[in-house]
Amino acid sequence: MKVPGEVIGHLRERDNFFIASHFNPEGDALGSSIALGMALKARGKNVTVFNKDSVPESYEFLPGNDVITDSVPDSIENLLLLDCNSLDRAGLEKSEVKHAVVIDHHKTSNSFGDVQWVIPDAPATGLMIFYLIKELGVDISKDIASNLYTAIGIDTGIFRYPNTTSECLVVASELVIMGADPGLIAERLFNNYSKNRFMLLKEMLSGIEMVDGIAVTVVLDEMYRTTGTVSADTENFVNYPLLMDEVKVSMLLRQIGQKSWKVSLRSKGTIDISAVAAMFDGGGHRNAAGCSISGKLKDAKADLLKAVQDVIKQ
Amino acid sequence: MKVPGEVIGHLRERDNFFIASHFNPEGDALGSSIALGMALKARGKNVTVFNKDSVPESYEFLPGNDVITDSVPDSIENLLLLDCNSLDRAGLEKSEVKHAVVIDHHKTSNSFGDVQWVIPDAPATGLMIFYLIKELGVDISKDIASNLYTAIGIDTGIFRYPNTTSECLVVASELVIMGADPGLIAERLFNNYSKNRFMLLKEMLSGIEMVDGIAVTVVLDEMYRTTGTVSADTENFVNYPLLMDEVKVSMLLRQIGQKSWKVSLRSKGTIDISAVAAMFDGGGHRNAAGCSISGKLKDAKADLLKAVQDVIKQ
Repeated sequence: MKVPGEVIGHLRERDNFFIASHFNPEGDALGSSIALGMALKARGKNVTVFNKDSVPESYEFLPGNDVITDSVPDSIENLLLLDCNSLDRAGLEKSEVKHAVVIDHHKTSNSFGDVQWVIPDAPATGLMIFYLIKELGVDISKDIASNLYTAIGIDTGIFRYPNTTSECLVVASELVIMGADPGLIAERLFNNYSKNRFMLLKEMLSGIEMVDGIAVTVVLDEMYRTTGTVSADTENFVNYPLLMDEVKVSMLLRQIGQKSWKVSLRSKGTIDISAVAAMFDGGGHRNAAGCSISGKLKDAKADLLKAVQDVIKQ
Repeated sequence: MKVPGEVIGHLRERDNFFIASHFNPEGDALGSSIALGMALKARGKNVTVFNKDSVPESYEFLPGNDVITDSVPDSIENLLLLDCNSLDRAGLEKSEVKHAVVIDHHKTSNSFGDVQWVIPDAPATGLMIFYLIKELGVDISKDIASNLYTAIGIDTGIFRYPNTTSECLVVASELVIMGADPGLIAERLFNNYSKNRFMLLKEMLSGIEMVDGIAVTVVLDEMYRTTGTVSADTENFVNYPLLMDEVKVSMLLRQIGQKSWKVSLRSKGTIDISAVAAMFDGGGHRNAAGCSISGKLKDAKADLLKAVQDVIKQ
């Protein structure tokens, strides 16, 4: 992967940088931001690393995460916007930005940024930051390595998703040599359930229904109450039914209020589940999408099932 | 990793080989056996690849798996015993073996084998076979790469276990260049549950008990009957309780017969669970081990729990 000279030149010439990423951040946004901040500091630059949202507890293991500030400035001299491509997504729409470099692996039709380095084929922004740091001539410290390994790890499902390339494996190997601990990072990323959250998962799975290769699971308000959990604890739950080879689509309905449901949809292979989400004013990608629906549980399920069955038939 | 000259010399000089591995085979046993068989055939050798048990359905995606025979010979000229270190474990205790090379990553006090190449630090036998094949001067074909990626993948939890090294990541990277498909292999290894197997998992989890950071799960004969499953369906089940951050040790007891239990043990971090297995004449690695125990369920659990608690205290 070649780093554009324009990006390197900009980082070398300027002295003050403001690194930002999308709100509701995950490992790629956080790891990329922290690692680049460390590298620029090592080059003697003044750096602010910003995120609108605070670091989720599950990412507090990232070395240097305490550097992240949520204080929105009136004016930004040199913005480095990572893993997203609009000021809105970073929560910086009210700041005056004098110069912006976008470094991202999400396809965009957005024209924001004086310099855009966007590689939709890159499995993670963290991989781009790895090459950028090398190009800056900064040694990859153990802390930088841990942040970048996490960034690449989360966006490839630690090398389980189809976006896993030989390139990211070889970079991961180098990051391990530099001190990233693969077992520990995997453990922090995936084995981080509270006991209550595990009990909620168990309860959700105990009510699973299967119809024609479609798995339907439900989380009721009552289940949060009995297990002492909250909605955020259901992250990733929709993926469990996909363990079954016969399940082509997994659908999770989470209760919000009396007769309202937040719906997560996952599909395997070429089934475009975002088409189902779109029918209910939702959105997403081919294999991962979401929407909301109102009504009695029984009716909501039936409507969604019909929509999924129609999409599968196509 | 250096391949002993004795091993290479033996493979170069002889013409007929019988490759075997442990019964109840998983990805490392199967992938290593099939890959080495392909490489020796590419060198013009006569090769038989044997396993006492048939290839589990979940591994039928391995290219070349149909080469495996379960026919036990009276006599074996040159045995290559992979991923285990005794004839018993391979189901070959009745065969007359003239010469045996053991290639394994399990620690052993066993003296079986005219040549022993045992590297307990190697994350998988498949990694050793990779270097062996390179040393033989055989090109890694797409089929060999897929088998070796699976072998290394299953024994490192696809690079999530603490045994993951920079070396195995760089080898994985090379195997991807040679044609192994990381997304597809991960899907086949992990999203391959039958509906019945998923129901068994659900039922096992519903009975989970937690004592001082130790999770205890049980699979009874009756559970196999009601869900239409068999013992092999419990593969990987012991890892689910580790999702919880408070769980340091996971212990799964599977019923075999009236009052007999096969025990799988997993630990996090520096807890050496193989010490527990050893107390019950079992074995394994620091974070993954197993043993058998007889007695009433209640007593077996209590004995194991005490042993685990003692090891945690150390």
